Amino acid sequence: MFVKKDTHKVAMLVYPDAQILDIAGPLEVFARTSRWLTLQGHYSAQAYTIELVAEKQGLVKTSGGLAMQAGQSFASFTGCDTLLVTGGIGFSNAMQNEVILRWLQAQRQNCERLGSICTGALVLAAAGILDGHAATTHWEYLQLLAANTKNCEVRNNVLFVQSDNIFTSAGVTAGIDMALALVEQDYGKSVATAVAEQLLLERRRGATQPQKSRFLEAEKRTDRFGDLQLWILQNLAGNLTVNSLAERMAMSSRHFARQFKEHTDVTVADYINQVRTEEALRLMETGVSSHKDIARQSGFSSEQHLRRALQRHSVGAIQNSR
Amino acid sequence: MFVKKDTHKVAMLVYPDAQILDIAGPLEVFARTSRWLTLQGHYSAQAYTIELVAEKQGLVKTSGGLAMQAGQSFASFTGCDTLLVTGGIGFSNAMQNEVILRWLQAQRQNCERLGSICTGALVLAAAGILDGHAATTHWEYLQLLAANTKNCEVRNNVLFVQSDNIFTSAGVTAGIDMALALVEQDYGKSVATAVAEQLLLERRRGATQPQKSRFLEAEKRTDRFGDLQLWILQNLAGNLTVNSLAERMAMSSRHFARQFKEHTDVTVADYINQVRTEEALRLMETGVSSHKDIARQSGFSSEQHLRRALQRHSVGAIQNSR
Repeated sequence: MFVKKDTHKVAMLVYPDAQILDIAGPLEVFARTSRWLTLQGHYSAQAYTIELVAEKQGLVKTSGGLAMQAGQSFASFTGCDTLLVTGGIGFSNAMQNEVILRWLQAQRQNCERLGSICTGALVLAAAGILDGHAATTHWEYLQLLAANTKNCEVRNNVLFVQSDNIFTSAGVTAGIDMALALVEQDYGKSVATAVAEQLLLERRRGATQPQKSRFLEAEKRTDRFGDLQLWILQNLAGNLTVNSLAERMAMSSRHFARQFKEHTDVTVADYINQVRTEEALRLMETGVSSHKDIARQSGFSSEQHLRRALQRHSVGAIQNSR
Repeated sequence: MFVKKDTHKVAMLVYPDAQILDIAGPLEVFARTSRWLTLQGHYSAQAYTIELVAEKQGLVKTSGGLAMQAGQSFASFTGCDTLLVTGGIGFSNAMQNEVILRWLQAQRQNCERLGSICTGALVLAAAGILDGHAATTHWEYLQLLAANTKNCEVRNNVLFVQSDNIFTSAGVTAGIDMALALVEQDYGKSVATAVAEQLLLERRRGATQPQKSRFLEAEKRTDRFGDLQLWILQNLAGNLTVNSLAERMAMSSRHFARQFKEHTDVTVADYINQVRTEEALRLMETGVSSHKDIARQSGFSSEQHLRRALQRHSVGAIQNSR
């Protein structure tokens, strides 16, 4: 099962005001995998090594104020198997740094896999590396990514994207999910899942899961509609007609429907349909339930209704403006 | 709403072979909250500052091989509001380092809040700080924590514990959830949730959620029972009798029940009851569903059955051996 014999070198490109969790999350996944495989006695060599590379060797200050040591400079770097570019508010300066962009372009042919976390995608974009590919980034920066790429399918509602050998991930913790997907490609699902268990994740999230969490969206609200949305999310398989929800809120149906739209910018029917479709997609990802079960669990009245909802739902891409 | 005027200082105690994600996860939460509050214009001063403190100032190598800069030494450190102790395989050396232990004891009266991530709890324990308190740590180290404390209620199935002003969290990513709970105490729920959204979490996990994920446990299995467990987790509200599950597996009921127990170390009935109870607890945490709704969603046939299951379920504590 563990066929790889050579150590896989992972490097992360860092720059001033990079984001520390963008760096630490994915790199911890690789480091922990390496340790886990050794402890299990599966693998005597190191499965992965990790290192930070920066324009100049030495301390790099991250956006929260802590400093990390870049062990490699562009000059000393001799290549790696997977090169990831961190995100963080320093990305906009990095996008204008010709030395970084030229170096990245040169790595293109050197690395088996190239990737980014969060706004690191903007740095790859500035180097022209995402042109002609599909990609994603943190939900706040999707338009900017579209504006800085040519012919790039910017996906706006996914956690990470593989396009040939280029992997881009949404913000911060999505980098952990993407790194686990890379470990799965290298060592299989049970290793990736064991490492997720070590890191105390509750679930591994797949590429197509939405970036904006419905749970957090509802919890963030300070009005009564937040509690209602949370309740809906917990009762997807229940009776969610406008009338029954209006009754729950002690409003007339007409008043409720109007108020819901006003407070949440979406109609009740659309909201329920969207969250049911997203839940169905999540259930489908594990591949163990039939469409009939999934329809029931996510609250669709039939497989046919589920199928129609899935057809209407699309991951969505932002049009390039240049 | 944002009443705090002073900057809240968060410090993390680090040592050689500390774990990088234990450090970066929680500290990113505080740094990001600070940034978010400033960007929203809610708060002009910095809400939080973060810093690393080590026995000696300078580079500290983390367990994956990367080095971080400890900006403060014990000698230069002038105190903070929240002091957290990182985990990582270096914890066992740190437990025997008298300089660290004495320093920690001295901070006891200095800090408003004291806490740990992962095996950082063992270092707090070695300093005697957890004696007489409730605490937790990474699921692999719970027994060791019990053996190294006096009169400590070691909770074995929770993500984090508050005991007076001492906060201990389970492994790695649970530190992120604990930090968000601290932010909630300081700035309210909507701020904590907005920061979780920035970090792309799917949900904020509460203190009482189990450390071992049922989803990962099922996914890790390479036999047919893994798929069955995943299917059960997705169909908790469905018909989960031994007969129907046996039929699904194309086995006789008796053979299925025996095989399930043999492969998973738990009877089918116990497994289903446990996962339904855990789901009910999760649903209860948000406080928006009635017990009747929760019973239905988690698959209990009545509120009474749910209540009985909750009574039987306990968070569980490990007995101290000394």
